[in-house]
Amino acid sequence: MKINDNYKNLETSYLFSTVKRKVKEFCDKNPDKKVIRLGIGDVTRPLCKSVIAAMHNAVDEMGTYKGFHGYGPEQGYDFLKEKIQSYYLKNNVKLELNEIFISDGAKSDVGNILDLFSIENKVLIPDPVYPAYVDTNIMNGRKITYIKADKENDFLPIPNDSYKADIAYICSPNNPTGAVYTKEQLKIWVDWALKNNAIIIYDAAYECFIERDSELPKSIFEIEGAKKCALEICSLSKMAGFTGTRCGYTVVPNDLNFDDMNLNKMWLRRQTTKFNGVAYIIQRGAEAVFSEEGQKEIRENINYYKNNARIMAQTLTKHNIYFTGGVNSPYIWLKCPNNMGSWEFFDYLLNEIGIVGTPGAGFGKFGEGYLRLTAFGTYEDTKEAMERLDKLLS
Amino acid sequence: MKINDNYKNLETSYLFSTVKRKVKEFCDKNPDKKVIRLGIGDVTRPLCKSVIAAMHNAVDEMGTYKGFHGYGPEQGYDFLKEKIQSYYLKNNVKLELNEIFISDGAKSDVGNILDLFSIENKVLIPDPVYPAYVDTNIMNGRKITYIKADKENDFLPIPNDSYKADIAYICSPNNPTGAVYTKEQLKIWVDWALKNNAIIIYDAAYECFIERDSELPKSIFEIEGAKKCALEICSLSKMAGFTGTRCGYTVVPNDLNFDDMNLNKMWLRRQTTKFNGVAYIIQRGAEAVFSEEGQKEIRENINYYKNNARIMAQTLTKHNIYFTGGVNSPYIWLKCPNNMGSWEFFDYLLNEIGIVGTPGAGFGKFGEGYLRLTAFGTYEDTKEAMERLDKLLS
Repeated sequence: MKINDNYKNLETSYLFSTVKRKVKEFCDKNPDKKVIRLGIGDVTRPLCKSVIAAMHNAVDEMGTYKGFHGYGPEQGYDFLKEKIQSYYLKNNVKLELNEIFISDGAKSDVGNILDLFSIENKVLIPDPVYPAYVDTNIMNGRKITYIKADKENDFLPIPNDSYKADIAYICSPNNPTGAVYTKEQLKIWVDWALKNNAIIIYDAAYECFIERDSELPKSIFEIEGAKKCALEICSLSKMAGFTGTRCGYTVVPNDLNFDDMNLNKMWLRRQTTKFNGVAYIIQRGAEAVFSEEGQKEIRENINYYKNNARIMAQTLTKHNIYFTGGVNSPYIWLKCPNNMGSWEFFDYLLNEIGIVGTPGAGFGKFGEGYLRLTAFGTYEDTKEAMERLDKLLS
Repeated sequence: MKINDNYKNLETSYLFSTVKRKVKEFCDKNPDKKVIRLGIGDVTRPLCKSVIAAMHNAVDEMGTYKGFHGYGPEQGYDFLKEKIQSYYLKNNVKLELNEIFISDGAKSDVGNILDLFSIENKVLIPDPVYPAYVDTNIMNGRKITYIKADKENDFLPIPNDSYKADIAYICSPNNPTGAVYTKEQLKIWVDWALKNNAIIIYDAAYECFIERDSELPKSIFEIEGAKKCALEICSLSKMAGFTGTRCGYTVVPNDLNFDDMNLNKMWLRRQTTKFNGVAYIIQRGAEAVFSEEGQKEIRENINYYKNNARIMAQTLTKHNIYFTGGVNSPYIWLKCPNNMGSWEFFDYLLNEIGIVGTPGAGFGKFGEGYLRLTAFGTYEDTKEAMERLDKLLS
């Protein structure tokens, strides 16, 4: 038996293990100092009440003959898809129910969607970036071109005619940079894709952090033409604290055709063959996220995290430190002061004031010289961390 | 963008849609006749009490700061893996914790495990068979050889030196035939795999239907040498009624090496990159399945289904109809009487006595002339169906 040789080309990331080791060393040496972790990408606030109530109900149902649910539709129950359909309608995006596929999270779909594409396709990935885009394509053996995201383009690269690729990734609001594309900028991407017969894989996992009354696009389908060249992957992980509850969705428009094949039908075939749907209990919990009460409750949590981001942004602004994100994103991506390198600044923050960030270099070579802070901690810790930083930089 | 052309080679199965249409037509014409469905592959009994209680607890935890669980280990929590480790130990199979990977069900892993293998591998698949083995390999573009399973080999094909392949599928107890390999027969498979540098993908989704005190193997790892040539995919779907709750596990031994690569490490890399684990709540429910009380409760359900199978087997035996399964399996695979074809007998049963089976021809060309009945209905319906069949055949 021959293994898939492409796995030999994967690089092991030591980013989080190195961060962990360095923090442990610091704590061992300084048992009295309180370390504040602003590096984590996981939420910390519990599931909201509506979700808890809905899941209790569903658990009860599963214990009765009448309420028991066995195999459901692989692509998700209509009760949840209808809620997501309405959620999109608020942004004037009209979706058919069959265009929405419920998943166990964005990470699964980011990887699995590649099943539909030839390995001969050339892939365009911004750098710095969420590592899964790169690794999943390496596993398949596709050729990757990196697009430089930097201070010059405010970490929002825009394509031009020299860009040649078949598959392009966009993550907006971006992980790790927090940068958000405008509609005008996304229109350039859509036009480029249509002209080049390319597909855009649009990662909208952080759309909920965009101010609801903002003009910034929450979905790529707000852009004309996108339904012919883009699919969108979304998640309840950050929206509703579902990182350990696992539910997301992917929108594959009916108008998405390549090589005389319809991608919506292909994805349906993929999912019905290789997936058996998300647990009924979890889908009932997800449904509650989109109820009126649920939306109120999750907004409180999102606003809590956004307030943390605001506090961090204020401190950085005060000290004239360049950063992206912090407004419509839980992430702050900052230029390390005094031209320090990512790891250098990481060590400096940890050793001087006991703050843990994530070195930007871990997200790609163009992330060097930057550091990512996240808003997922508590208000008290975030405030204290910024007071320490303020003092350090003053 | 070029699509994955292999999808063009997939055939659409009209099996279940045709069954559905025919049943609907019959019901429309005969509104007074009670149709009994013995074709379904889904369980009907609710989740057991221990599981319900455990999931309620976990839901409550998720609503508190202290008990909230965000991202868990992609390969599953140790609390569940330890339970599965003990479960295997009852059959004298010793597993390391890191050899057990918790999944959202066997179907996902059956498809996803193929990520690890080169598309150049030749695949050996028994016929008739669970359709996912075939379709997932066609999606990847691998060449498939079918092994004939028939009356002559009691639907348990055994390899010989003429078998040349890199990947071989075994499902025991088998879906759809219900046939179960003995240890001696599996040993021949293991020796063949070791000799040919092949890997066995062992689908043990129905192992729980094997009598606990039986000598029949519940795991391929009961066979010497298997840890060097096999991985095993298992599911709580039929064991504990988790078809709509979604949890399973895959065992990838540490000793599984091909091309200087370790498959356990490759699968870990695959899962950490393309999967984010099973919901905490569901894993707590699964843990309860393996508790003492949980095992008692699920055994009651399994025995209930097994009793249905026994009732069906008795009727067929009485009328000298050849069948496999029915003892250590929820499936009965019977030879259609009077040399009728699969669909011919299906129509005959439906129109004469209102019983719905699944035509064997839908599981592969060597399934022609057979019909599958399942034990997942109620006792009352199963009994009534067999009384009708007894009368029809008398």
